[in-house]
Amino acid sequence: MARTITSIPLQDGFRCPGEFETKAGCWLGWPERTDVWRNGGKPAQKVWVAIASAIARSEPVTVCASAGQYANARAMLPSQVRVLEMTVNDAWFRDTGPAWLLNEQGEVRGVDFQFNAYGGLDSGIYFPWDRDEQIAHKILEVENTDRYCAPIIAEMGGIQCDGEGTVITTEQCLLNTNRNAHLGKEAVTQHLLDYLGASKVIWLPRGCKFDETDGHIDDLACFVRPGEVVLQWTDDPEDPQHEIYQEAYDILSSTTDARGRRLKIHKMQAPAALIWTEAEAAGLDHGDAALSRVAGTRICASYINYYVGNNVVVVPEFGDPNDLPAQQLLADLFPQHQIIGIPNTREILLGGGNIACITSPQYAGSRRQP
Amino acid sequence: MARTITSIPLQDGFRCPGEFETKAGCWLGWPERTDVWRNGGKPAQKVWVAIASAIARSEPVTVCASAGQYANARAMLPSQVRVLEMTVNDAWFRDTGPAWLLNEQGEVRGVDFQFNAYGGLDSGIYFPWDRDEQIAHKILEVENTDRYCAPIIAEMGGIQCDGEGTVITTEQCLLNTNRNAHLGKEAVTQHLLDYLGASKVIWLPRGCKFDETDGHIDDLACFVRPGEVVLQWTDDPEDPQHEIYQEAYDILSSTTDARGRRLKIHKMQAPAALIWTEAEAAGLDHGDAALSRVAGTRICASYINYYVGNNVVVVPEFGDPNDLPAQQLLADLFPQHQIIGIPNTREILLGGGNIACITSPQYAGSRRQP
Repeated sequence: MARTITSIPLQDGFRCPGEFETKAGCWLGWPERTDVWRNGGKPAQKVWVAIASAIARSEPVTVCASAGQYANARAMLPSQVRVLEMTVNDAWFRDTGPAWLLNEQGEVRGVDFQFNAYGGLDSGIYFPWDRDEQIAHKILEVENTDRYCAPIIAEMGGIQCDGEGTVITTEQCLLNTNRNAHLGKEAVTQHLLDYLGASKVIWLPRGCKFDETDGHIDDLACFVRPGEVVLQWTDDPEDPQHEIYQEAYDILSSTTDARGRRLKIHKMQAPAALIWTEAEAAGLDHGDAALSRVAGTRICASYINYYVGNNVVVVPEFGDPNDLPAQQLLADLFPQHQIIGIPNTREILLGGGNIACITSPQYAGSRRQP
Repeated sequence: MARTITSIPLQDGFRCPGEFETKAGCWLGWPERTDVWRNGGKPAQKVWVAIASAIARSEPVTVCASAGQYANARAMLPSQVRVLEMTVNDAWFRDTGPAWLLNEQGEVRGVDFQFNAYGGLDSGIYFPWDRDEQIAHKILEVENTDRYCAPIIAEMGGIQCDGEGTVITTEQCLLNTNRNAHLGKEAVTQHLLDYLGASKVIWLPRGCKFDETDGHIDDLACFVRPGEVVLQWTDDPEDPQHEIYQEAYDILSSTTDARGRRLKIHKMQAPAALIWTEAEAAGLDHGDAALSRVAGTRICASYINYYVGNNVVVVPEFGDPNDLPAQQLLADLFPQHQIIGIPNTREILLGGGNIACITSPQYAGSRRQP
């Protein structure tokens, strides 16, 4: 049974696991809209299949496709990937899917944050976002999982948890006037603690430049285990991101986590930012329902935007000199996992995100839901 | 994993259970289209909630609603009923859902029959039916269940199984020129045996008059257990259905089932046929996408169109003098079940069917699917 419950997860003994904890499955949408995904979504769909297939080697994968794309998605994806019908505005399930929580008894519940397409009418990326608002609820319903409704606008791509009480996020995103600025930092902090079952929020001022999400953490830093973070980096002081990486490093290296530990920080050399070509921009429908991408538009690229499954790490490749060093660092950080590089994730990044952005990890409880 | 497999269920050791066997769940659609369901579907939706709620007392219920109706269906239905999104042409899940098969090891597979909205372009009830053709596949996908594709046009509302090798159906439906006449009776018989894992088909010539489905068996006769059938009946020789009931009785009482047993037949007194009123017809959109129902249109009513769950029997009420005798007979036939009458199922019947027509029973395997 999937009830909507009005108590507070923290008080109920639930917590959001770390990205590295055991998963019961992974949920994705399906790229379709022709004003976001060039050439009718076909190039992105091909990469999507590679990503879903790689994750399916590790845990059950469900792809949610529209009625119109259902047969096509079912035909393109391997049979071990489950395909469900779902109407969406776009395909960013990290941000529109639920946050999955666990308690000590291994019970699972979900958090449904408010969603406004990265800023709503104040610089949001697409309009409308009514169907995306329903995605978390629909996923929890499929899985017969109880649902909390959090009273803030937030995307899980903008939040990192260590599963032991620590949350990292950015003020640029959650305290933006287009999200929750009106509530004030103290109240937003308390809501994060309440709904993620945590005890400390580490606030970074900003995320990466050229990131359309108002500074999501998932292009900048990620817990690889409690007490250890991997951080996007460049040694080039002329790089426009340099000061942001340095600022994040300074804060993360001088704070402690919820358990009082100093954080160990692993620097990961960034790929070059991506710049839309004329040919790519010509593959888009142009209108006023989605952010306009024209030739020359820059988008932040990041290896931090990987997905870690139970026994694979699925990581973007860009044809960049830093592709292989990034995979080597992840291999060192996840010695029990197979590292799978996905070629040509430029096609996902053109839509505005990458592997982490399109995947919603469902954490595994120790017993089945009733 | 939900594969589409090309072998033959009979040869693989799978069989279609009897209606009375143990269920893992029940699937329904949601009435919406305003040229079939009067007053925007609101009266039918209210009865739908009563039916889904009654079945949910017995086994898990899933209701599939369109994107546009998702929030409304979720709000109207109790939380123990699961609501999924699905785009459909109409809501007859008995006919568009899969046939669920079991083998001796308790494994579950599904059969996806072809569907043409009760006759396709030759007197079918609505157009198009492309989304309804996808329902069985989508349901099996949700449940990670392997799928057979049967090479005939058939609806499970037109088929009765005893779970021990016997199938009852009507020539009017399955051998209709708008279904499978071109294949010939022998080939259709073999396909039924192959895909339902059976060894004998008992053919009745016709179903009830005023039934829009071309004579579905589910208004006429139903197995209550192997060797026993309940048959719609009237003692009035002037009733236009009388000769059809008599014809069915003569055949069923003179044949044997797959195991060589004579059938025990329980006669159930029919309610009066339903006649559309002016007020009801005024609540419909009129167009050319669905069968036109105008004031005076008659539709066959039947208590045979009940749903039997694991511990409830959910049966239509019409405000007819035969409502209570029908429930008493079902109480005698299912002494371990609670009999639940659903008031005002006229609202479902106005759409063209009743409780059995809108419910797809999912039979329970003895072990979970991989």
